[in-house]
Amino acid sequence: MYLEQEIAEQPAVLQRLLSEQSETARQIARAIRDFNPAFISIAARGTSDNAARYAQYLFGTHAQLAVALATPSVHTLYQSPPNLARAVTLGISQSGQGEDVRQVLADARSQGGLTVAITNDPESPVALAADYHLPLLAGAEISIAATKTYTAQLTAIAMLVTALVDDPALHQALAKLPAYASQTLSQFISGPLHDPLWVERYRYMSEFATIGRGYNYSTAFEINLKVKELCYITGDAYSEADFRHGPIAVIHPGFPVVVVAPAGKTLPGVLDLLEKLHDKKAELLVISNDETAFKYAQNPMRLPADLPEWLSPIVAILHGQVFAMRLAIVKGHEVDQPRGLTKVTVTR
Amino acid sequence: MYLEQEIAEQPAVLQRLLSEQSETARQIARAIRDFNPAFISIAARGTSDNAARYAQYLFGTHAQLAVALATPSVHTLYQSPPNLARAVTLGISQSGQGEDVRQVLADARSQGGLTVAITNDPESPVALAADYHLPLLAGAEISIAATKTYTAQLTAIAMLVTALVDDPALHQALAKLPAYASQTLSQFISGPLHDPLWVERYRYMSEFATIGRGYNYSTAFEINLKVKELCYITGDAYSEADFRHGPIAVIHPGFPVVVVAPAGKTLPGVLDLLEKLHDKKAELLVISNDETAFKYAQNPMRLPADLPEWLSPIVAILHGQVFAMRLAIVKGHEVDQPRGLTKVTVTR
Repeated sequence: MYLEQEIAEQPAVLQRLLSEQSETARQIARAIRDFNPAFISIAARGTSDNAARYAQYLFGTHAQLAVALATPSVHTLYQSPPNLARAVTLGISQSGQGEDVRQVLADARSQGGLTVAITNDPESPVALAADYHLPLLAGAEISIAATKTYTAQLTAIAMLVTALVDDPALHQALAKLPAYASQTLSQFISGPLHDPLWVERYRYMSEFATIGRGYNYSTAFEINLKVKELCYITGDAYSEADFRHGPIAVIHPGFPVVVVAPAGKTLPGVLDLLEKLHDKKAELLVISNDETAFKYAQNPMRLPADLPEWLSPIVAILHGQVFAMRLAIVKGHEVDQPRGLTKVTVTR
Repeated sequence: MYLEQEIAEQPAVLQRLLSEQSETARQIARAIRDFNPAFISIAARGTSDNAARYAQYLFGTHAQLAVALATPSVHTLYQSPPNLARAVTLGISQSGQGEDVRQVLADARSQGGLTVAITNDPESPVALAADYHLPLLAGAEISIAATKTYTAQLTAIAMLVTALVDDPALHQALAKLPAYASQTLSQFISGPLHDPLWVERYRYMSEFATIGRGYNYSTAFEINLKVKELCYITGDAYSEADFRHGPIAVIHPGFPVVVVAPAGKTLPGVLDLLEKLHDKKAELLVISNDETAFKYAQNPMRLPADLPEWLSPIVAILHGQVFAMRLAIVKGHEVDQPRGLTKVTVTR
């Protein structure tokens, strides 16, 4: 099974990216500083769009840059691109084949904006369309569901922001990322989550929700997408802030909710929501490094104790990937070739 | 039932807004032109966030302005706001009580950015935090689910963009909006949709998806939210482009999908998806003014034949509102006071 291998490879993939592409990240950061952009624009689809959601928060909190997620159809279908001359435009695409992502980069470049591509293929149209390219070096991803290319995309974004801010504390934290990932995955080998049977409980779940806030809004979306792609179950992803006003109405006893609750600025609000969900007798799957958050959890999905919040999406998603894979296996689905999915997306 | 009244009031609400606030829109448009922003930033939550999604496309296609949807927690929880000095920041809030929306406006204003609020209460904190305020004049909205304030928000955005572009064709089209809305709602009184029993078919639907693209990406999200809020059913909203790569895996025979398919640039792609969904034996609810789109539809939910695509979200949502309301009634739910919802949202 390729999916399992590719999930397991992630600490090594992140290590390689950090070791071999730090200079590229520094070079791009210099170009961004010299350009002095008014904002960042990001074009991406699917899993890469969830990486863009992470970038939205990280550029905001660390580099004081607002991020506009591009609306590719404005470039392709409506053929009336916005003015990106004062922006740095990032194109994120695993395969680098996304025609709409390429078009956004080409439009931005022709307007005089600065363009940067993040892909896993340096020879791809998206990589070639930009002024700069940060290659993911993740190796071939054979399983259709993206795992190692997703965490590599997040890491590439963290590298860019770290190089831009150039604070030693950030550099040090980032260097520990492969160890955090490895520590987290080890729970599936010898830790409390080593028995894959614990996911049998969810064999017949027919709906679910995933919740995160701030940096981990991205994680809520990406877990949702993995479970949907691999297990064919309808679910929704929410910010904790949006969920409590409205969508919480769907919760009934037993409703499964995956909550991403790492220690940090977003934790108090998430803990409060966990209590509300417990009162409504929801079934709670909690990804955290905070004991209070585990109080109502069916199974603790542990993150390293000292994991900084800004890096937590890169590690928290590992739990989501393994959960989605194991649930797909328990349901008897083909995990490497899920129905309805193609590896390369070429939206026009 | 207030909800039904408030849905029916919409043509009059839009007419009042257009008649009484065109000068305000012109004045704000002049200020935006003088400011010459690098981009637009929008802060909003829930239903208002769906209005922001509409703005994202409309400012892009018509005014060549990129739109960044603000991440309020960057301002509130992380207390590290992005630099909005070169942006026009819009705050959209029905009640005007959203503390995080107010904070984004206050941060942008203190940085020297231009700020504009769109609310239904000129004395509210959000209205008072901005340089300019465009009041919705929608009257009290008593039912908890937002309907007339949503279409009024979309209209306010269309008014701003029309004033900014100042093209006579846009002004003329916009003036016809109340008539388009009224024509659409009339189908529920004497047209093919007059019998509320047709929604009984969906009494026990346990999942659903909503799909739109471009301008109507907003409509897909807003229909989804109304059904979720009023009927407590888990559903997902997608762009047609994202749905076909991945999430389409959840579709099995009988799976209900609401597809927003007005004539325009996005139609060819949506028609292609409709055919794929039909092949998978999905149950299709189609909102359109194109006969081909209705070919596989259970019930045609008709839009006016000459409705311009850029205004279609303001009219297409009416079908979604009525569908969600009628389904809630058929399911025996209290439509004016759905569980889990409060009218005023004050996220910090």
